[in-house]
Amino acid sequence: MRAVVFDKELKVVEDYEKPEVNAGEALVRVTLAGICNTDFEITKGYMGYVGVLGHEAVGVIEDAQDKSLIGKRVVPEINYGCKKPGCPWCAQKLYRHCPERRTLGIVQKDGCFAQYFTMPADVLFEVPDNVSDEQAVFVEPLAAALEITEQLHIKPDARVLVLGDGKLGIVTALALKALNLDVTLVGKHREKVSIAGGMLLQDLAIKKEWDVVVEATGSISGFETALALVKPRGVLVLKSTVAGEKPLNLAPVVIDEITVLGSRCGQFPAALRLLQSGKIDFSPLISGVYDAKDALAAFDANKEKNTLKVLLKFS
Amino acid sequence: MRAVVFDKELKVVEDYEKPEVNAGEALVRVTLAGICNTDFEITKGYMGYVGVLGHEAVGVIEDAQDKSLIGKRVVPEINYGCKKPGCPWCAQKLYRHCPERRTLGIVQKDGCFAQYFTMPADVLFEVPDNVSDEQAVFVEPLAAALEITEQLHIKPDARVLVLGDGKLGIVTALALKALNLDVTLVGKHREKVSIAGGMLLQDLAIKKEWDVVVEATGSISGFETALALVKPRGVLVLKSTVAGEKPLNLAPVVIDEITVLGSRCGQFPAALRLLQSGKIDFSPLISGVYDAKDALAAFDANKEKNTLKVLLKFS
Repeated sequence: MRAVVFDKELKVVEDYEKPEVNAGEALVRVTLAGICNTDFEITKGYMGYVGVLGHEAVGVIEDAQDKSLIGKRVVPEINYGCKKPGCPWCAQKLYRHCPERRTLGIVQKDGCFAQYFTMPADVLFEVPDNVSDEQAVFVEPLAAALEITEQLHIKPDARVLVLGDGKLGIVTALALKALNLDVTLVGKHREKVSIAGGMLLQDLAIKKEWDVVVEATGSISGFETALALVKPRGVLVLKSTVAGEKPLNLAPVVIDEITVLGSRCGQFPAALRLLQSGKIDFSPLISGVYDAKDALAAFDANKEKNTLKVLLKFS
Repeated sequence: MRAVVFDKELKVVEDYEKPEVNAGEALVRVTLAGICNTDFEITKGYMGYVGVLGHEAVGVIEDAQDKSLIGKRVVPEINYGCKKPGCPWCAQKLYRHCPERRTLGIVQKDGCFAQYFTMPADVLFEVPDNVSDEQAVFVEPLAAALEITEQLHIKPDARVLVLGDGKLGIVTALALKALNLDVTLVGKHREKVSIAGGMLLQDLAIKKEWDVVVEATGSISGFETALALVKPRGVLVLKSTVAGEKPLNLAPVVIDEITVLGSRCGQFPAALRLLQSGKIDFSPLISGVYDAKDALAAFDANKEKNTLKVLLKFS
């Protein structure tokens, strides 16, 4: 089968072996997949991953032990755990914290940038009929955005600022807005912030007056700007993995009694419900749709400054 | 009056001007005061402070507008705010977050290492009769320790680790133990950790298995060790102001969805109630009591590795 593989270099392989369906798994024929910045990071060595890339996809179940699943249009949650008795994370379905977890296209599990992938059936979620493939393919980042509301009670009148107008920031702002929260997206690119009715950083007063600031820039300077915006006793949600580049001063966290909340992937049901409701539309984020055989060109497009989401068509 | 002053250098001044009592204030005659590491940091330039040092003290009110206060034995909360209408922090008595706050012996307010100091009467708290001066002088760090429970609901079965066996760590461990929490103090000095029945870091398994880890070492490496001990979705309480020394990797905060909670000073009533209850005893922390005229020797003693709390007697 055709697959987009990273093994020292990124390549499109035409004869990658179609995965076998193990007990409890389902085989999904991919229709559409989305490139995430994590995929790009992996091509630079992140996680030391080798194999089929990709963790954002929508497809149709072609085979499964449970034959009633065949034909369903589904999206995959990206982690699955050991499910051993006594694993508190698996017992709560918080597979992303299971110490033995595997992660689609990221940790010890071939990803979904291929004509077929397999996942345990319990992490495949059926897509409502009224949700198109082009919207459904955003369910993973949408669920990650909604994870903030799983971890944190954001009160209806809280003033929320989302910092960073990349995909992560825009999806987060749109998701929180869809929940009727008071959200301002702030970034450096007029066209991008306008997707969520946001504003330019240069026009923002840097004052400690925001109840919740979501750091979605992925840079140390973004973290520092976020700290300068969150009010004392407020919450700074850390959405992107900021690797250390320069010494970071955490003293303001103590002095202002800030809560820094690390936030990662989310579960899918609420995200699918939001997509089904029609309260959110990701079309403005789609910068291009490439046939999978042109995946290298798609990755090149993903790197460009004005690009948001690049999709790959597999069938 | 005699006062311990920092102005380029630390000195004992014999003829420092006795403070005037302004509207709403009370004049306190100091009996006993405690040296905090912040005082030591100030002598190295922290906060650019110049004036009388000190923010931990117990004394007796000698003068006040409200004459009924005279003769009361009191301890001072260290911050007071602008109290202007519309200041949300002052309205909640969270003076430590008022942007115009002054802080005893730290920000624009002469401290309590003197025969007399003044503070607004509403931040002076009467000491219960059964609490000695030697215990009462610990009320400020004790309140700072209890602030953790003001910010965070620690469940009765949560496993709490306090990292660092300096004054801050020991006081925090003793305070949380007095609340019947399951607390383990961990440090590098057998004698110090034993004050709170703790254990040596070298004997600790470095595993992500603690619900709450309180970082009280004040070092970047302490922050990193704390991150290696807190379990996914757990809370890392940042108690000491860790200034950046080396690049800090915050990625684990996101991956493990850690909450990093900055925690600072606390309010006094709960701390005084705990002292009154007799559930806590700070005597083992007292390394020495110096007459105020020997304050320089007391500061030298404070610097020594095995020293915990050094007290200054003013009358």
